[in-house]
Amino acid sequence: MDQAIAQLPLTRDLLARLDVEDPLGHFRERFHLPEGLIYLDGNSLGALPKTAPARLAEVAEREWGEHLIGGWRKDGWMTYPERLGNKIARLIGAQAGEIIAVDTTSLNLFKILAASLALKPTRRTILSDTGNFPTDLYMAQGLIELLGRRHRLKLVEPKEIEAAIDDDTVLVMLTHVDYRSGRIHDMERITRAAQAKGAIMLWDLCHSAGAVPVNLTRAGADFAVGCGYKYLNGGPGAPAFIYVAQRHHDRTSQPLTGWLGHADPFAFAAEYRPAPGILHYKCSTPSILALAPLECGVDIMLEAGMPALRQKSMALGDLFIRLVAERLNGRGFRPACPLAAEERGSQVSFHHDDGYAIMQALIERRVVGDFRAPDIMRFGLTPAYVRYVDVWDAVQILAQIMDSRAYDKPEFKQRASVT
Amino acid sequence: MDQAIAQLPLTRDLLARLDVEDPLGHFRERFHLPEGLIYLDGNSLGALPKTAPARLAEVAEREWGEHLIGGWRKDGWMTYPERLGNKIARLIGAQAGEIIAVDTTSLNLFKILAASLALKPTRRTILSDTGNFPTDLYMAQGLIELLGRRHRLKLVEPKEIEAAIDDDTVLVMLTHVDYRSGRIHDMERITRAAQAKGAIMLWDLCHSAGAVPVNLTRAGADFAVGCGYKYLNGGPGAPAFIYVAQRHHDRTSQPLTGWLGHADPFAFAAEYRPAPGILHYKCSTPSILALAPLECGVDIMLEAGMPALRQKSMALGDLFIRLVAERLNGRGFRPACPLAAEERGSQVSFHHDDGYAIMQALIERRVVGDFRAPDIMRFGLTPAYVRYVDVWDAVQILAQIMDSRAYDKPEFKQRASVT
Repeated sequence: MDQAIAQLPLTRDLLARLDVEDPLGHFRERFHLPEGLIYLDGNSLGALPKTAPARLAEVAEREWGEHLIGGWRKDGWMTYPERLGNKIARLIGAQAGEIIAVDTTSLNLFKILAASLALKPTRRTILSDTGNFPTDLYMAQGLIELLGRRHRLKLVEPKEIEAAIDDDTVLVMLTHVDYRSGRIHDMERITRAAQAKGAIMLWDLCHSAGAVPVNLTRAGADFAVGCGYKYLNGGPGAPAFIYVAQRHHDRTSQPLTGWLGHADPFAFAAEYRPAPGILHYKCSTPSILALAPLECGVDIMLEAGMPALRQKSMALGDLFIRLVAERLNGRGFRPACPLAAEERGSQVSFHHDDGYAIMQALIERRVVGDFRAPDIMRFGLTPAYVRYVDVWDAVQILAQIMDSRAYDKPEFKQRASVT
Repeated sequence: MDQAIAQLPLTRDLLARLDVEDPLGHFRERFHLPEGLIYLDGNSLGALPKTAPARLAEVAEREWGEHLIGGWRKDGWMTYPERLGNKIARLIGAQAGEIIAVDTTSLNLFKILAASLALKPTRRTILSDTGNFPTDLYMAQGLIELLGRRHRLKLVEPKEIEAAIDDDTVLVMLTHVDYRSGRIHDMERITRAAQAKGAIMLWDLCHSAGAVPVNLTRAGADFAVGCGYKYLNGGPGAPAFIYVAQRHHDRTSQPLTGWLGHADPFAFAAEYRPAPGILHYKCSTPSILALAPLECGVDIMLEAGMPALRQKSMALGDLFIRLVAERLNGRGFRPACPLAAEERGSQVSFHHDDGYAIMQALIERRVVGDFRAPDIMRFGLTPAYVRYVDVWDAVQILAQIMDSRAYDKPEFKQRASVT
């Protein structure tokens, strides 16, 4: 929203006009969105690109069905992880050949953690922050246990990261955009600080790729991972990606040495020999049916372009925060995200003591966000398909729920295991 | 083929009659098979179940498209690995709750290798054989390297396995059906031998599941892994499965401690706490679009039933070997597989000095098998869709190639990197 609009009294009509004029407005048509649903959970699972079903049918019926084993060559399945990786590279400022779309975020973290410990054998501390996503911490814990507890995982508050880097730090492992608060770490500054102390810098871009501008090359990052099923809209459990800076390709090794990371897998040799470049970060035969819809999602993001996506995402977030402040003042909502758009990812979140129950009431009324313990209501604002009027309507419905205390029902008190 | 038929002079008409009378004959209609193609490579990539495209469309359009994040609960995505695992369990003689369909064969091997080394901390030898598939060996090498080379991978000839098990053996890791020769290891005997020496027994069932009868419970196996995209017909790069005997569920731990193996993933706790049962062998969010077609393939195998599949598979193999002996005597083909059906998996293979070029000539004539270095021509005989006349026609075409020396072309000499 530009300054002029930011001054106007807001009405739904004004926002509807903004949607009509929105240069990204037509991208909503690229996704299948259920009628009447306000979907603010694209940071958990992105929406279905309309091209994905046809692409899945093509892979299944024409490629697998007709070409069978020949698909690995004829349909380029063998190089799909690197071709799709090169597309993702354009979204997050990496060079061609520095990213492959393989395995999962957790598994790619494991590869990088192990490679990093081997690079810095005299150092013992993996440094992260309390805002990191749990799987990042768990994978580090699993590796440390496996290696006989010779290393430690040190967690500090997000603001204390730079001060905590020292001569014992093997690597600094951070999620760029906090999954709960949406707070963005300063990638360039922290990377410099880590490297100045001789540490390796690993960025988790699960809540960044397709959501906020990232330039791994400019930041000088060593490693990164990211998720395919959030802002890249790749489908439930889509493959993840791994970034290894070119300078690390031939001086690092990772322990998940499956046959597709071999220099010559079809020689079927008994001894592992790593493939050149980033290819030895491959492990196993990739699922082609999982990669195909991820490509559909990535293609849309590339076409929309990160600058336009970011601009709209910030406007949606500012609007959400302003409407909550105006309409729900004194109702117990405290921002859990930065108020300044440039410090915030493509989401907003609020603390509320009844957050879980309120979120259930919202979902019942077809406004889908999610809840993150202990008290955070989280709303993902995917700029490619969320409209300004969606934000208006969501806050309107939220206000009705608060006015009517519709959240105060026994069935909304019990936390479900999956949201 | 029963004894009476085995005595008759073979004709194509006789085999066509066998196909008509084949109780599994109608299962061929469950698969999409290209017109005029004789597909003998289901041991590299199984054919497309005709139900798979509709199931993929359902998962994409109705589940992902309409339910979005709600699919994890509404459509049972969260428990898909264990539900599908329970179906696979029925194919290979495991109990419900002992198998989950997750990750890949290589990654599941890594989990088991690490869990086993932790179970037997005073032992140092991982024992395998020279017939094992390379990725099994590579994953062991990667783990040994990661752990500072305190263990060793010892390879012996397949026949020498039992004699090589000793007090230093952590685990015996074998592929049940050799990927090149098709030779079947005696699962019960070797498992007993391993356990008698205090070692752990891990079976790789990549060429067994859906191909030969397996009873993990009766064999008393400790661990197993297997592939979804070969005889289970799950599609290119389909998820694999992992079997952990119930007695090992709560006394083992594996190092790929991703968030979905956590006892309460949605608590988002900072400390990893393993889920009960086999669930802590999960790591990451599974691809639902990869699991769905695997279920289509497994359902067909369950309906056909392993006894009937095995009976036909043995008959197809006997027929292939007999026809090659009769029609290609003196042309340089030497069986690379056991001649006795009960010692052989669902494939036949032959050594030939010109094996690579001959296989290319076969593929050009639409008979698809594959080549495995150094000189093995391999033909997968998936009994659910390979007919007796397919074997006749394949050998007929092979004989024509040999008669005409059609394989003796420069373009067939150069080995491609993918077959």
